[in-house]
Amino acid sequence: MAARAMRICFIGDSFVSGAYDEECLGWAGRISADARRRGHDLSPYNLGIRGETSVQMAKRWRGEAELRQSPQQEGRLVFEFGVNDARDVNGKRQLEAAQSLAAARDMLGAASRWKPTLMIGPPPCGDEPRLARIKDLSERIAALCAELNVPYFDSYTPLLASTSWLPCVNAVDGTHPSASGYAEWAQLIDAWPAWREWLP
Amino acid sequence: MAARAMRICFIGDSFVSGAYDEECLGWAGRISADARRRGHDLSPYNLGIRGETSVQMAKRWRGEAELRQSPQQEGRLVFEFGVNDARDVNGKRQLEAAQSLAAARDMLGAASRWKPTLMIGPPPCGDEPRLARIKDLSERIAALCAELNVPYFDSYTPLLASTSWLPCVNAVDGTHPSASGYAEWAQLIDAWPAWREWLP
Repeated sequence: MAARAMRICFIGDSFVSGAYDEECLGWAGRISADARRRGHDLSPYNLGIRGETSVQMAKRWRGEAELRQSPQQEGRLVFEFGVNDARDVNGKRQLEAAQSLAAARDMLGAASRWKPTLMIGPPPCGDEPRLARIKDLSERIAALCAELNVPYFDSYTPLLASTSWLPCVNAVDGTHPSASGYAEWAQLIDAWPAWREWLP
Repeated sequence: MAARAMRICFIGDSFVSGAYDEECLGWAGRISADARRRGHDLSPYNLGIRGETSVQMAKRWRGEAELRQSPQQEGRLVFEFGVNDARDVNGKRQLEAAQSLAAARDMLGAASRWKPTLMIGPPPCGDEPRLARIKDLSERIAALCAELNVPYFDSYTPLLASTSWLPCVNAVDGTHPSASGYAEWAQLIDAWPAWREWLP
């Protein structure tokens, strides 16, 4: 199989940057390393920023991703966001679902008109009120992605069903996993047909 | 020892982004993971872009680094550049040494007035004319850093003296190492007192 030269920008929040991962890879680093081991000439750019909401991300993703393109290589985009949107700060939800959806439509619409784009949904967390919001947001972003024809990876459902994800997250900070949780999530994404279509 | 919450932006070229590292960590990922394993609450941001010269980097580092600060965490900056400056493109050196030095003075001066800053020098490569330029550039940047009071890590000297670095680089593309070379470089930086002062 010929190696395909590809630059992928991973745009998102702390889950993209790999917060609390003692191996400093996150899911994005793991699926990228797996693709390199399969022989692909892949240049991943990790553009995750801790604490960012979709509205914050919408303002900066394009400029950062444009700087990381190369005329000689295919450019691709992978997004992940949502958990910070659903977070309470000083007793108030950071973003209402309608605001998240508007930012998501803005980003994913512009992204997919520009480059092949994938969306990774937000993962489940340890506290109940936020968990319900994440579930709702995941379903709404899935519907938006179907409309925009952007492949959507539902992280919520398989990680909630997992016997190891929530115990792992609750042992850290109730939101983020440690290395073993990132590895579990990465394995799921790595087996996703939309990802494998890019990097068989 | 209490963990210190710190956000570090690693600003540089393909060596920062970890090109050709089958583990997708580069030296920046490795020294960050080592610091996490020592108990530090560290958020590394990898802002390496393949092929960038110091002049290109000087235009974008500040905006990207500002977005990655947090009022609750200490911000730090680590730079690495030079090999692309010394590269011939279409028979012409991309940047003359004076241009590199001007860009380096601009970046490292502004950076060190803003946040604690370290500079990692460019590593040796497999082709002779460029090797001589990298040596010269490394010495000039070292002198600049001494003037600016920015700690400078000389990568060139120990990696040139290593029996494994150049064979590793020559087995890849004559410029970049594979995982074992990044690990060797990372070990040297990890033992550097200026780095350990940040993250003992």
